[in-house]
Amino acid sequence: MPTSAIDSLIFRDMFGSTAMREIWSDAFRTQKYLDCEAALARAQAKVGLIPQEAADEISRVCKLENIDFETYSRETLTIGYPVLGLVHQIAHLCQRDAGKYCHWGATTQDVTDSTTILQIKSSFDLIAKDLNRAIAATEQLSRDHRSTPMPARSNLQQAVPITFGFKMARLLATLKRHRTRLGEIRPRIEVLEFGGAAGTLATLGENGLAVQEALARELGLAQPEIAWHTERDRIAEAGCFLGLLTGTLAKFATDLKLMMQTEVSEASEPYVANRGSSSTMPQKRNPISCCYIHACAASVRQGVAALLDAMVQDHERATGPWEIEWIALPEIFTLAGGALAQACFVLEGLEVHAGRMRANLETTRGLIVSEAVMMALAPKMGRDKAHDVLYAIIHDPAMGDKSLADMLLRHDDVIAEFSEAEVRRLTDATNYLGLSEAMVDRVLASTSA
Amino acid sequence: MPTSAIDSLIFRDMFGSTAMREIWSDAFRTQKYLDCEAALARAQAKVGLIPQEAADEISRVCKLENIDFETYSRETLTIGYPVLGLVHQIAHLCQRDAGKYCHWGATTQDVTDSTTILQIKSSFDLIAKDLNRAIAATEQLSRDHRSTPMPARSNLQQAVPITFGFKMARLLATLKRHRTRLGEIRPRIEVLEFGGAAGTLATLGENGLAVQEALARELGLAQPEIAWHTERDRIAEAGCFLGLLTGTLAKFATDLKLMMQTEVSEASEPYVANRGSSSTMPQKRNPISCCYIHACAASVRQGVAALLDAMVQDHERATGPWEIEWIALPEIFTLAGGALAQACFVLEGLEVHAGRMRANLETTRGLIVSEAVMMALAPKMGRDKAHDVLYAIIHDPAMGDKSLADMLLRHDDVIAEFSEAEVRRLTDATNYLGLSEAMVDRVLASTSA
Amino acid sequence: MPTSAIDSLIFRDMFGSTAMREIWSDAFRTQKYLDCEAALARAQAKVGLIPQEAADEISRVCKLENIDFETYSRETLTIGYPVLGLVHQIAHLCQRDAGKYCHWGATTQDVTDSTTILQIKSSFDLIAKDLNRAIAATEQLSRDHRSTPMPARSNLQQAVPITFGFKMARLLATLKRHRTRLGEIRPRIEVLEFGGAAGTLATLGENGLAVQEALARELGLAQPEIAWHTERDRIAEAGCFLGLLTGTLAKFATDLKLMMQTEVSEASEPYVANRGSSSTMPQKRNPISCCYIHACAASVRQGVAALLDAMVQDHERATGPWEIEWIALPEIFTLAGGALAQACFVLEGLEVHAGRMRANLETTRGLIVSEAVMMALAPKMGRDKAHDVLYAIIHDPAMGDKSLADMLLRHDDVIAEFSEAEVRRLTDATNYLGLSEAMVDRVLASTSA
Amino acid sequence: MPTSAIDSLIFRDMFGSTAMREIWSDAFRTQKYLDCEAALARAQAKVGLIPQEAADEISRVCKLENIDFETYSRETLTIGYPVLGLVHQIAHLCQRDAGKYCHWGATTQDVTDSTTILQIKSSFDLIAKDLNRAIAATEQLSRDHRSTPMPARSNLQQAVPITFGFKMARLLATLKRHRTRLGEIRPRIEVLEFGGAAGTLATLGENGLAVQEALARELGLAQPEIAWHTERDRIAEAGCFLGLLTGTLAKFATDLKLMMQTEVSEASEPYVANRGSSSTMPQKRNPISCCYIHACAASVRQGVAALLDAMVQDHERATGPWEIEWIALPEIFTLAGGALAQACFVLEGLEVHAGRMRANLETTRGLIVSEAVMMALAPKMGRDKAHDVLYAIIHDPAMGDKSLADMLLRHDDVIAEFSEAEVRRLTDATNYLGLSEAMVDRVLASTSA
Repeated sequence: MPTSAIDSLIFRDMFGSTAMREIWSDAFRTQKYLDCEAALARAQAKVGLIPQEAADEISRVCKLENIDFETYSRETLTIGYPVLGLVHQIAHLCQRDAGKYCHWGATTQDVTDSTTILQIKSSFDLIAKDLNRAIAATEQLSRDHRSTPMPARSNLQQAVPITFGFKMARLLATLKRHRTRLGEIRPRIEVLEFGGAAGTLATLGENGLAVQEALARELGLAQPEIAWHTERDRIAEAGCFLGLLTGTLAKFATDLKLMMQTEVSEASEPYVANRGSSSTMPQKRNPISCCYIHACAASVRQGVAALLDAMVQDHERATGPWEIEWIALPEIFTLAGGALAQACFVLEGLEVHAGRMRANLETTRGLIVSEAVMMALAPKMGRDKAHDVLYAIIHDPAMGDKSLADMLLRHDDVIAEFSEAEVRRLTDATNYLGLSEAMVDRVLASTSA
Repeated sequence: MPTSAIDSLIFRDMFGSTAMREIWSDAFRTQKYLDCEAALARAQAKVGLIPQEAADEISRVCKLENIDFETYSRETLTIGYPVLGLVHQIAHLCQRDAGKYCHWGATTQDVTDSTTILQIKSSFDLIAKDLNRAIAATEQLSRDHRSTPMPARSNLQQAVPITFGFKMARLLATLKRHRTRLGEIRPRIEVLEFGGAAGTLATLGENGLAVQEALARELGLAQPEIAWHTERDRIAEAGCFLGLLTGTLAKFATDLKLMMQTEVSEASEPYVANRGSSSTMPQKRNPISCCYIHACAASVRQGVAALLDAMVQDHERATGPWEIEWIALPEIFTLAGGALAQACFVLEGLEVHAGRMRANLETTRGLIVSEAVMMALAPKMGRDKAHDVLYAIIHDPAMGDKSLADMLLRHDDVIAEFSEAEVRRLTDATNYLGLSEAMVDRVLASTSA
Repeated sequence: MPTSAIDSLIFRDMFGSTAMREIWSDAFRTQKYLDCEAALARAQAKVGLIPQEAADEISRVCKLENIDFETYSRETLTIGYPVLGLVHQIAHLCQRDAGKYCHWGATTQDVTDSTTILQIKSSFDLIAKDLNRAIAATEQLSRDHRSTPMPARSNLQQAVPITFGFKMARLLATLKRHRTRLGEIRPRIEVLEFGGAAGTLATLGENGLAVQEALARELGLAQPEIAWHTERDRIAEAGCFLGLLTGTLAKFATDLKLMMQTEVSEASEPYVANRGSSSTMPQKRNPISCCYIHACAASVRQGVAALLDAMVQDHERATGPWEIEWIALPEIFTLAGGALAQACFVLEGLEVHAGRMRANLETTRGLIVSEAVMMALAPKMGRDKAHDVLYAIIHDPAMGDKSLADMLLRHDDVIAEFSEAEVRRLTDATNYLGLSEAMVDRVLASTSA
Repeated sequence: MPTSAIDSLIFRDMFGSTAMREIWSDAFRTQKYLDCEAALARAQAKVGLIPQEAADEISRVCKLENIDFETYSRETLTIGYPVLGLVHQIAHLCQRDAGKYCHWGATTQDVTDSTTILQIKSSFDLIAKDLNRAIAATEQLSRDHRSTPMPARSNLQQAVPITFGFKMARLLATLKRHRTRLGEIRPRIEVLEFGGAAGTLATLGENGLAVQEALARELGLAQPEIAWHTERDRIAEAGCFLGLLTGTLAKFATDLKLMMQTEVSEASEPYVANRGSSSTMPQKRNPISCCYIHACAASVRQGVAALLDAMVQDHERATGPWEIEWIALPEIFTLAGGALAQACFVLEGLEVHAGRMRANLETTRGLIVSEAVMMALAPKMGRDKAHDVLYAIIHDPAMGDKSLADMLLRHDDVIAEFSEAEVRRLTDATNYLGLSEAMVDRVLASTSA
């Protein structure tokens, strides 16, 4: 039975999705190794380096179902690296002498790196799709709640009113930036590795670059400007993107957890019967997805540091740092994909308790708009005096059970300048939303953001 | 097929061992959950809280083979936490009304935390065993090579001579410190969790502490002074130990990788046919275990940071940080156990090339003992003059193909004070081993270190 | 003007204390370098290796005020390491020929490592003192609020009642564990470094160990079993301790931030006029120390990973990893000391709002004790039925404005078994504190914990 | 005296440069705060919100030399945040009633975030300049050593020949990618923060967006689509870039350290008298810059994880995570700038020992081209037989002191197919450089890379 959280039969769907998990599985990776070997043969045939029939035969046998995993696994452990054990099997499976053309001029890392890139490419396709889902759901929430008032919180203190749509629009703008980032980094990352033992393609003589170009085309990857066996900025950059993305998701999860508190209750994760239920405390409505997102993000960010560490490679083929990637990549892609899937689930089904949001605006009986009051008093009374009046009211024990409006109306300085209606209007939190709604519109309209 | 490196059919034995992997597997964990439930029932029967027959019946059914994993897994996913789905099954399996006594007064986290501790306990047993193996092998190397001269290196420059036994004794002293650490932290870590929903054992009335004590005894754990559902220093401390241990192993692996360089060749990983072989460069003898150790240590250290992060838990039961442990613990224990197993393999079979060590002492044609020469010249010539003479020799182009002895013998100041035999003896690296051998003896004799 | 947060004239007292900052300052470190040089001379005089007058003269000049920092700084930059530039100055300051005995047989790292240990020792003295302060304050809070009821929270949901003293006792037990840890690691860490170029004390001939022993005694450090220039487990272990300690402080800060929320208001940081005030939102009472503690802990934990990374050192004197410590150690000791000082400030002056705690117990109008109710109903109605009754009540829209007691009293199954008085007592949260108070007593009585 | 490594009078120039340090100093930051306040006043005057004379007056006083740092520092500590204490001083300095228009409608974080962005912008200017220097130096090295043969190393084993120019071209391509990255991220990062208490610009009424636009223009920053007080992807992205950049520099430093080994000696850091010298081992030529780069990169990568952690912010203004940036940003920008400056120093003055490179190609007496030999034998003898012949030679004890050519010439199968001259040519490492030179040209010609 599995050991890791991302493979565990019990935990894997909390921290990952089937689709992402499969991309980083032994099966997918091994099939991609085989695809690379087959593509290499075809590329070499195209350039005339090996016979077309050999390429055809190699392509024919390069299928996962032909591989004896037991043997492959054992041989890999002996050698210390994958691929070679696979090449032995496919070479053996090839009819006639096609086998001797397998893996021609390639080094193990050419195949594993190109495979890693193909896995990243598939993962990015998946992430792009889910990112679009998250963006669409967040757009919807921003639009639907463009004018739903609620308290903003600064230092976990109620600060001034905003709308829930405004809160969502800030998330939306961030998610759009992530989409832009993904668009920028993909062409730089999705690049073939093919250089031979030290990157010079020495085994291929004059044909090196032509084979490289043909192979890149076969695999749908860009041709590299030069070998990058030990220049891992591409890989680490992919990790950084996941760190940034999950950081945003964890920020959202934090907000939602806080809004789900018994004392706040402004929103909830989508209701699913028995989800987040407690055996002995049936009154609880636990955040669940938020917890997973939090944990995924915390793990991914340490994985980013590990991938940056893995950049510190020695010479032309490294001695240990590379293996860090073997551990970190499957994990952080799975966890990031898992966190994004959880976020989509939450965003698409979020329960927004607009009534409670409005009720919470009343918690401070008007103090939440003391900024507004001060800005209104200041022009008439002077800023310092306005501040003093408010400060006195806030620290007046009587404020304990009166509203700010009532307290203001007891001040001569105030009633000298403002009618009761004006005071009531001024202390109504829903009248102090600022540009919340305009900002929502700005973000919704923005394409570049 | 698995996704993570530690479960991968291809990679798992590089980065872990079967024994450690099993301790953190779904199977072992689930069985320990069941063991906890059974032990709880027995403890409660002992205290008279539930009937003895119920405890017997619960104990009877709490076996892994009775569990329908498919159902358990699906239910866990719905609820968001493990255990409850398991309790449902065992309650159902119990005959008569024993089922209603299952999990009495416990909270999910009581069971999962106690299980985690049982997993840590088993892991520490394994680590203690392998640590002893590593210590024994390092003692042997220290003893065998107590007097085998080789160059010490400072800043990757040959510095002065040492013995290989001295190098190993430094590792030995460190490994012994780790053994001492492990002895200190285990009693503090191997502690039961049993507190109910918020740690107050409220459901058990007067019997709470008696049940707790009996349960601790059943499970072979210490009784806690108070609940620690959100005080995770124990868990993080276990992680810190793994970080320290693998840090030491990675230092050793670094040294060995450097000693295995083509240009140095002073030691090698144990020879295994085809291990570390290259398809196209048969002359290479790659370090393999060293690479794995390097990667494991790099991953573990980030896992330590993740576990320290997981300490930042909210209130009495946390919202996300706890789940970080679910991801980090199986991984870092497996990786640390894997690194230690690789280190044992290497230490027990290390190939030491004493001849090459001695030959490398000649690389600088005597400059490696310039410190010794300076210390010998200084009393007779004054320290500054001694330094100047040596500095001049080192930067004399003639030093390019002459030995330091020959160069010294060209200096009037030197031959005024020293005979040729004295100069030759002074520039013989094997005469400048300092207390290398005495230090080996010190460490071998040390019990506390 | 300074750049780093810990030196910034604006930020340094947020993230650190003067006392800790000074221990890691250039001034203290340089003075300790000088102390080491003087102690070395005295130790060598004691053993008869150098004249007593030389040792006296060296001790006389080894004072910070004798050092031209400008020159020292410039020379250090040229050489790339500290100490040597200092030795030049003190040698020059010595009268007669005492100067030539300076730094005899030592290597730079002997002096810098021993100095680092002396800095750690002073830091640990400071931490031990503040840890005792924190423990005393937490004991007081545990005792004072042994019976102050409040809601426990699980997943940020109100779960069951506890007392605030119970909450504090959990912190207290953890702080005591840290004190135990500190006691265990100090003897292992506070060890001299003195081995010469490669640790063999080759320059000192037969006298090596005698000088080492005398030097250790002079500096108040333990004698090492063998050189540890590149075995950095001691240093990393000190870092791990800081990571564990600040992890606990951050957990406390998290709880306090949450309790300070406008909607919760159960406790506050000590009141200081204008602290945490906002220019435009005078109603806010921001957590300030909590924020600093959070940020310090987050930085320290990554510093721990950096120190674990610094363990991966090459051969006898390392090429880069060592310098990681130069960056990390002053920072994490300052930040950890700062976090602890902030925690002491908060704990010693914490404002506990017992009235609000009790009021919050009413937020759910009795649902917070649904566990108690279920435990009481179960023996009479059967567990499943009890669960169903409660579940129905919780999801009954009428529960929106009624108390659990009222709802229960509408159920025939309930009133058949319980009188109204019993129902009222059962749903009074203050009657369901479990062993909160007994646990407080346990922790207060515990010495080992 | 300072505490942190980046401020230490002794260490600061090892780990940083004056220029970068100044950008993150109290002085620069405070001046930028003042610049923001002045720009805000001018922007508000432009929009007609405040009188032009007030804006002029505010601009006049917003100079660092007008600030009493002692008072400012003390007041900041009381409040817990910077800026407000500064506003008090400038308001007081303003003549007539201009002071009351200071900081109008802004929140502290508007000013500090915009200042942080201005600091990042200046830092990026500096990094862009040094990155160009590094690129130019690497281009020169690539060009100069386009055809300088040396051994490639895989797993620290000599693998096949390359040229040193090829090695440098791989670095060059990576540095160019970093330049591209920097170009992409700057427009996304260099964005104004201006939103008021919760980002809604509520205090400015209708004029909010107009003021925001004018302020952005004043400060040379882009206008934000919406407030980002708690959406920190921009900041973390800047950190990720530094992590990627220093990862590359550390890879280069690793290679150079390895090449500087006594046993390898293929290149050296630029010679500076006494740099890297040892008091007692004058023969050593220590890498110094490489060590600093290594340590900076290790610290930066943990800082990246800290900045990703800092993304997990609560609600509209955060409670602790933000302060992580205060600690991390000055440090990682200084360290990254320091590492880049060290790299420029090394690259611009690198000593390349071409003779030793060529000599090292002979270390294995021809085995380094066994791949070439195998590729040449294979077509004539079949791949398996070629492999067997070579494998036998490698493991033949006679290979210990003979060349591969001599060994091959003893094999009948070989001499049947190849003349001695062919064998000699085939085993000459300088004939097996593959596309090393073509790849150099490719990278030099590439603009996009």
